[in-house]
Amino acid sequence: MRTITVELGEYSYPIHIGDGLLGRRDLLEPHIGGRDLLVVTNATVGPLYLDRVLGRLAGGGQRVESVVLPDGEAYKTMASVTTILDALVAGRFARDCVVLALGGGVVGDITGFAAAIYQRGVDFIQLPTTLLAQVDSSVGGKTGINHPGGKNLVGAFHQPVCVVTDPGTLRTLPDRELSAGLAEVLKAALIADGGFFSWIEAQAGALLAREAEALGHAIRRSCEIKAAVVAADEREHGQRALLNLGHTFGHAIELRMGYGQWLHGEAVGAGIGMAARFSQRLGWLSAADAGRVATVLARLGLPVKPPALDPESFLAAMAMDKKVKAGQLRLVLLPGIGEGRVTADFNLRELRDFVRGELGS
Amino acid sequence: MRTITVELGEYSYPIHIGDGLLGRRDLLEPHIGGRDLLVVTNATVGPLYLDRVLGRLAGGGQRVESVVLPDGEAYKTMASVTTILDALVAGRFARDCVVLALGGGVVGDITGFAAAIYQRGVDFIQLPTTLLAQVDSSVGGKTGINHPGGKNLVGAFHQPVCVVTDPGTLRTLPDRELSAGLAEVLKAALIADGGFFSWIEAQAGALLAREAEALGHAIRRSCEIKAAVVAADEREHGQRALLNLGHTFGHAIELRMGYGQWLHGEAVGAGIGMAARFSQRLGWLSAADAGRVATVLARLGLPVKPPALDPESFLAAMAMDKKVKAGQLRLVLLPGIGEGRVTADFNLRELRDFVRGELGS
Repeated sequence: MRTITVELGEYSYPIHIGDGLLGRRDLLEPHIGGRDLLVVTNATVGPLYLDRVLGRLAGGGQRVESVVLPDGEAYKTMASVTTILDALVAGRFARDCVVLALGGGVVGDITGFAAAIYQRGVDFIQLPTTLLAQVDSSVGGKTGINHPGGKNLVGAFHQPVCVVTDPGTLRTLPDRELSAGLAEVLKAALIADGGFFSWIEAQAGALLAREAEALGHAIRRSCEIKAAVVAADEREHGQRALLNLGHTFGHAIELRMGYGQWLHGEAVGAGIGMAARFSQRLGWLSAADAGRVATVLARLGLPVKPPALDPESFLAAMAMDKKVKAGQLRLVLLPGIGEGRVTADFNLRELRDFVRGELGS
Repeated sequence: MRTITVELGEYSYPIHIGDGLLGRRDLLEPHIGGRDLLVVTNATVGPLYLDRVLGRLAGGGQRVESVVLPDGEAYKTMASVTTILDALVAGRFARDCVVLALGGGVVGDITGFAAAIYQRGVDFIQLPTTLLAQVDSSVGGKTGINHPGGKNLVGAFHQPVCVVTDPGTLRTLPDRELSAGLAEVLKAALIADGGFFSWIEAQAGALLAREAEALGHAIRRSCEIKAAVVAADEREHGQRALLNLGHTFGHAIELRMGYGQWLHGEAVGAGIGMAARFSQRLGWLSAADAGRVATVLARLGLPVKPPALDPESFLAAMAMDKKVKAGQLRLVLLPGIGEGRVTADFNLRELRDFVRGELGS
């Protein structure tokens, strides 16, 4: 087991990473004591792991209930949040209860948001079971839901009190979701660690083959990078936006295709490809390095390019991005591999031309 | 004009209090710059003050839009929050926008909550137009909505960046709402300042007659007391719960009568009466002091006793209170006038007997 701490003063918390950790009571004990617990999962993950988790939690003599949501990004809605809130109210859960998210990024985002707003905030714990959640969404306290007008437009910053990551759960993960998670691993490397990017190039095969050692390293290093960025800028006033590399393009892809057509990580993969090519076009990134990004995306089983979409509505969707400030769109671009930069230093017409070229292809 | 500062480190903010301040652009300027603005009000306050506010805001060259909600506690729901969120998304408001709440406590609570969760938090400003909002709900950052299972069960802590209080708006306030606001003034005095309580006893007539000097003093002193309590305990880990004097009983009254039958302040008035009588029953408060509380409640035009309700469902509603901790109900009681205490130091059977006696009467 390895433990990484996200340093946020009184809101600091541990991320425990190790095979077989799921539901290990001793890791959770300091955070749950004898308090009432609600475990939230979905219809895919529930049948695989809910009984195991409930069984381990039941030992403490406290009340343990569960909610099973439908699976999929299409359910990342206020209606799902309401389902959780209704369960908490119906069960008369008090403000000292603890809510646990068992599942991927969607379950974690919805559950964390419900925990953030129930009684103005109750404790929650992340038990991520997808690679995407393990390397990215379970860490950092961003919670929220989608709005018909845009992804993650409604939410809260609400840090978990503890994250328990069991890479063993990845054995049941569909191939497509494994690749989607690797998009966030690649993102972490691209913004912060060129050596880690080279390691991914070399280990792409091992990662796709789910070799335990390779996956363990990828998860740890991604969490370390994210934890450092979050610790420096919890509320995304500045550098935290680096974690959005590929996401402004990616969110527009998801919104215009309709949520759930591509997985979030797939859209981010194509978004990373776009960010690399736009960086190249601006003269920030060499053609060779932009090529390395495209090659590794393809090797990881990710889309390198966006699907054919209407460029104007795509650009309108980009303008809804949360990074827009004083009317100006900001993007995360790459001055080099292992180095990200949040910038508005580009010509909007150039961006428009670029997007038209990408989407028409 | 008087300015009180709520001291919360980087989240500190000013409360400006003075006749004619509503919409004074210079007070808002430091907080709104050239950013997009959304003013939220309701169908009662809108016709009185919205044009004046919009007119003063329009000078800055920025975009100013408005949303008018239906009036009443019955609309303090997720549906109203969604109305605001939809307007923000439809208008493509970015994360640097500012949302202004123009109205009473309900408008402020709903609007503050929408601001708390739109794009994970945007700035908001309180322009309270009822006495209740001016002395209590606009200060302290508690935002939220009701759930069919209980009042304020869903919400967030989200501090305003500025509060502008214009006692001149109280001239249009219905008598019943004036009295309801005075319940929170009385609460502030009872938990923290015996001298202020005596002042209220002496000035009850002047307050009901809306004498400007008396109302101004009542608002300032209430805000000072609340600001000090909030600064010491923003997230209600301890002493902030003092501000809930009369509220556990009051919320149960509102829930069981149906929201909107009594005004919040009226329910709090009866709740304060109950807290005083229960304090007397426990031997904490003298009969004379409990009598003073009842007398001043009546003089302020507030209910002194709860309505006839089913005691068992009333007690069940009390058990949903957010102050419940480790299964134990805590109440704010009065060891003396000007001194509140958060306590679980009472016998549940004694409470049950007391509630039965109160509701049967």
